[in-house]
Amino acid sequence: MDFEPFIRHISDFPKPGISFKDITPLLNNPKAFSAAAETLFEMVSVGKIDKVVGIDSRGFIFAPILAKKLDAGFVPVRKKGKLPFTTISESFDLEYGVDRLEVHTDAIKRGEKVLVHDDVLATGGTAKAVCNLVEKLGGEVVQCNFLIVLEYLNGPQKLNGYPLTSLLTY
Amino acid sequence: MDFEPFIRHISDFPKPGISFKDITPLLNNPKAFSAAAETLFEMVSVGKIDKVVGIDSRGFIFAPILAKKLDAGFVPVRKKGKLPFTTISESFDLEYGVDRLEVHTDAIKRGEKVLVHDDVLATGGTAKAVCNLVEKLGGEVVQCNFLIVLEYLNGPQKLNGYPLTSLLTY
Repeated sequence: MDFEPFIRHISDFPKPGISFKDITPLLNNPKAFSAAAETLFEMVSVGKIDKVVGIDSRGFIFAPILAKKLDAGFVPVRKKGKLPFTTISESFDLEYGVDRLEVHTDAIKRGEKVLVHDDVLATGGTAKAVCNLVEKLGGEVVQCNFLIVLEYLNGPQKLNGYPLTSLLTY
Repeated sequence: MDFEPFIRHISDFPKPGISFKDITPLLNNPKAFSAAAETLFEMVSVGKIDKVVGIDSRGFIFAPILAKKLDAGFVPVRKKGKLPFTTISESFDLEYGVDRLEVHTDAIKRGEKVLVHDDVLATGGTAKAVCNLVEKLGGEVVQCNFLIVLEYLNGPQKLNGYPLTSLLTY
């Protein structure tokens, strides 16, 4: 299925000069939405996965579907202050600002195989911080899985070393 | 399956006096996570659903799974300023503060049957605002579906008139 017609390009959002990739038309169409989930799942050809990590908040949309299909647990990585239990954190620069991400310390056990998912890979700052969090807990990142990779922002270089898959590349 | 042992009760989060229901242990356990999704799905006995609305951001975890299983589209309702296209909004009082929720104007078509999902029903302010948004767009709320209902906060009264289901009630 060609998913590109279901992506809406919005100029100057959230800041001037940024072309935002709006995935809501894809989510809104039952056939495209289901096909996108199935295709993301088929891209996970890395053996047994223990945990799927989704990045707050659009990463929460497909990561739990992948976790369920993979018989894995789902781990939310969230913005600072949102997770209620003991956390570790990583700060990072993102496409438009600076932020801090947290994960519960009991979310991933030493040696677990982890799939990291987000909707869009931009500069890679967020995804790299999440990979760092997984590794701090002793997990092994076996794949980074995205709906969309914005290659012109050089995210793939920042994730150099991690296998990377996506539905769409710009 | 008894889901209660997978809920962690955290005192005084995010504010003193609040007992926060942490669902991350449920998400982390593959069997409990999958069973929770299946049970939520089985509770949807209201005929054809066109759209499943998930509320930012923990509502995004199960709502897309329900949408996929129901062959419906997924509609994110988000905090103010997060959605990039034309929106309508509703303000509301929530358990700990005041906020504003938005939905894309093209997310729901007149006459569509809508399932509203969130992780926790507390005072009902958030869920009622979402039902209002759905109805402003001409949609019909056929069920409100939650992981957890905190009955002592009187959310069900606020949603009086909408069929309501949940995995757990406190």
